[in-house]
Amino acid sequence: MTTVTVWNEYRHERENDTVADIYPDGIHATIAGALDDHGFDTQTATLDEPSHGLTDAVLADTDALIWWGHAEHDAVTDAVVERVHERVLDGMGLIALHSSHYSKIFTRLMGTSCSLKWREAAETERLWVIEPTHPIAEGLSQFVELPETEMYGERFDIPQPETLVFCSWFEGGELFRSGCCYTRGAGRIFYFRPGHETYPIYHNEQIQEILANAVQWADRSTGTGSEFGNSEPIESIDTSDVRTVH
Amino acid sequence: MTTVTVWNEYRHERENDTVADIYPDGIHATIAGALDDHGFDTQTATLDEPSHGLTDAVLADTDALIWWGHAEHDAVTDAVVERVHERVLDGMGLIALHSSHYSKIFTRLMGTSCSLKWREAAETERLWVIEPTHPIAEGLSQFVELPETEMYGERFDIPQPETLVFCSWFEGGELFRSGCCYTRGAGRIFYFRPGHETYPIYHNEQIQEILANAVQWADRSTGTGSEFGNSEPIESIDTSDVRTVH
Amino acid sequence: MTTVTVWNEYRHERENDTVADIYPDGIHATIAGALDDHGFDTQTATLDEPSHGLTDAVLADTDALIWWGHAEHDAVTDAVVERVHERVLDGMGLIALHSSHYSKIFTRLMGTSCSLKWREAAETERLWVIEPTHPIAEGLSQFVELPETEMYGERFDIPQPETLVFCSWFEGGELFRSGCCYTRGAGRIFYFRPGHETYPIYHNEQIQEILANAVQWADRSTGTGSEFGNSEPIESIDTSDVRTVH
Amino acid sequence: MTTVTVWNEYRHERENDTVADIYPDGIHATIAGALDDHGFDTQTATLDEPSHGLTDAVLADTDALIWWGHAEHDAVTDAVVERVHERVLDGMGLIALHSSHYSKIFTRLMGTSCSLKWREAAETERLWVIEPTHPIAEGLSQFVELPETEMYGERFDIPQPETLVFCSWFEGGELFRSGCCYTRGAGRIFYFRPGHETYPIYHNEQIQEILANAVQWADRSTGTGSEFGNSEPIESIDTSDVRTVH
Repeated sequence: MTTVTVWNEYRHERENDTVADIYPDGIHATIAGALDDHGFDTQTATLDEPSHGLTDAVLADTDALIWWGHAEHDAVTDAVVERVHERVLDGMGLIALHSSHYSKIFTRLMGTSCSLKWREAAETERLWVIEPTHPIAEGLSQFVELPETEMYGERFDIPQPETLVFCSWFEGGELFRSGCCYTRGAGRIFYFRPGHETYPIYHNEQIQEILANAVQWADRSTGTGSEFGNSEPIESIDTSDVRTVH
Repeated sequence: MTTVTVWNEYRHERENDTVADIYPDGIHATIAGALDDHGFDTQTATLDEPSHGLTDAVLADTDALIWWGHAEHDAVTDAVVERVHERVLDGMGLIALHSSHYSKIFTRLMGTSCSLKWREAAETERLWVIEPTHPIAEGLSQFVELPETEMYGERFDIPQPETLVFCSWFEGGELFRSGCCYTRGAGRIFYFRPGHETYPIYHNEQIQEILANAVQWADRSTGTGSEFGNSEPIESIDTSDVRTVH
Repeated sequence: MTTVTVWNEYRHERENDTVADIYPDGIHATIAGALDDHGFDTQTATLDEPSHGLTDAVLADTDALIWWGHAEHDAVTDAVVERVHERVLDGMGLIALHSSHYSKIFTRLMGTSCSLKWREAAETERLWVIEPTHPIAEGLSQFVELPETEMYGERFDIPQPETLVFCSWFEGGELFRSGCCYTRGAGRIFYFRPGHETYPIYHNEQIQEILANAVQWADRSTGTGSEFGNSEPIESIDTSDVRTVH
Repeated sequence: MTTVTVWNEYRHERENDTVADIYPDGIHATIAGALDDHGFDTQTATLDEPSHGLTDAVLADTDALIWWGHAEHDAVTDAVVERVHERVLDGMGLIALHSSHYSKIFTRLMGTSCSLKWREAAETERLWVIEPTHPIAEGLSQFVELPETEMYGERFDIPQPETLVFCSWFEGGELFRSGCCYTRGAGRIFYFRPGHETYPIYHNEQIQEILANAVQWADRSTGTGSEFGNSEPIESIDTSDVRTVH
């Protein structure tokens, strides 16, 4: 059974009434509840817990980690980022949501600035399915419409996605690559754009469906272990050379 | 005119006779000399210079940076790595050579461990051209043969290359993706495997030809500037929404 | 010097007044004129010429072929399609425009249906630059706006592009991958969406700039020749095996 | 349950004693037997059956089609190729084995010549796992060794694979991209190199394991249906424009 850990800054919900009205128990609780309904084994972790709730034990027990950060990226310690990074390379899935494009863990995995354009005007977003047979798009129709969203616009400074599953149209005239798949080490990564804290995005059933699909896709419990380091030859060759600096 | 800066640790050449015999003035001097012959404007920088020779002024004047590191990756300061990283995202090309797979700047750009298998046995390597029409392969025949090399073997823990230009066959039975292209931000990156310090790889004219091609490819002085940040709508929409947390 | 051949069905312009008013000498003449102004050596070819104007001699002399087809894809003979296909694999660039998504040569190179959604309502299109440092985007600002276009919408049934340079936003609510790069054999292929016959798209200077960039990118006069077929071993191995069926 | 159809020319086995000794009931029977043991619902089809055994009914009932062809590619009728092509775009998986690189269906899907270098000398091949966490590599160790194979060497004229799962080392000095994934329309395609008729490749348990993994990967019974063709706007726009040629 797939175990998902939903991580959230969990600050806006405690400091801003608009956000609190939408997510009284936090964005993480809403997402974890939805994934629980989809049959996953779920747990949550937040910024203000010790180790941000992401101890080695928690990560070892996590098949896919969902990450929601926004205003406090710098408050996440480098030690925790390093720990999460290693777990991703070791095979844990990572789903980076919305403003997590600027999180330390996502930019660390991408290697780029992950900058973009944005606007908060409660405008319409239409998530078009670009690759309809990708597992993350399973069960969707041609597009998902969100009546009120924050806009994110291109240029989005990311490495070219391995697969572009969704691309968003915005009422104000922009578009954005909003569902992007990557592999890093043994881990699968999915960046998913929707989710601004002042709109009830994660209560949307289609968005929940996509998150469930993404968790399923990102969890690959199997896989060949890799061997690294100094290595004996397989063919019979002369190994007497001594010009080594190592 | 393209300006290339060749960076080198420049320690082995001063500490090990085998290396000093092959590269009396350092690997950087040999490569810079070859690129000078190919018509590039060249300069060099080394670890033990102030700021490792990579000041803002030097980087601003560099179209493509060649990097050779091996045993002293940790001695490169984070500040310099950060500076180089920003210049790559801003459009400077980067050519990471051989053991630089483990350099801070390359792993920072890749987001993965960049681990691999290796062996020093002076064995034969044959660099096969996988994409013969790629600019970096221009002028080559089917393969380049190197009679004595260190072996690097798969699994090489890198993000899937945007283009795989070369793949190496080794006498001892392994193979390796040895010419890998990436784009990160506005910068082009080429990882090129050959180049162990105890073999005269950078004196090989075909290797020099490949380096010259790679510099040419990695230098793109042009390009549209990107705009990031808060952005007014292009279409006429209602922007009176006030539910912002920003 | 790069030689471009602009191919056009050249039927609409002779049969429909709206089209004739915009392109009195044909779409091919307008495009060829613009590319001539950009310094290319240009020639044209049309459906109703013998061999559709695409003899072996013409193709051998062509570095990049621009293709505009719409209602008469089936009238292009298979022999000419085969000839063009071979020239592309041999290194000639191909730029497939607009409704040429359904041309025999483009679907032959893609291997898919190349189906899409469409609507003719003279609506606004905004071509966003996704990869601002790609050579085809050189000199552009963030987007190109076309006040009146035919809409093409996703799902566009193509192989995942090697590079997605442009993506289009449409007033009616759709989006579309409108600038897609591919390599097939030694040839470079660019699919470029704009260009419906009843709107003056190819008179737009930014569109002409993109076409000039695309021709430059698609022409690679150089490249290593490939060797195929039965091949002697490079290493010393026993070749006495006789269990062959060939 | 996944239904696999194994297609084979089935001529060599009836005409050549060496091949008959290895595959007395045909390559298709050996592969189908192995997949049956892996829990798949299997059936076979061969060249000399009516419609080459690939009727609409058979294809409609096939989740993944395995294809082995060699000397009789031209004997496969275009009508059957067209039928298989449509089923692949519609979602049926295709696994093209060994000399099927030159089959009509594979070259039709790739759009390139699919040429390569080859040699029959019963030499050693070592299939290295490049992407150890890909589902097709599940359960394997670092490489699979085949003591006697036909050599295939680069340049292999294919479109750049979406994922390169295996790359082969050959005793004679060459290498080859031997496990290549593609998506075309709704179908997944895997090219897998091993399998020459005069060596007992398909009796190898690791090869059978890979084929089982590939079938599992290629079968995606689910997926969003795509909508194509003329399309009403989603946003409220003026659709009164009458400048149409359609």
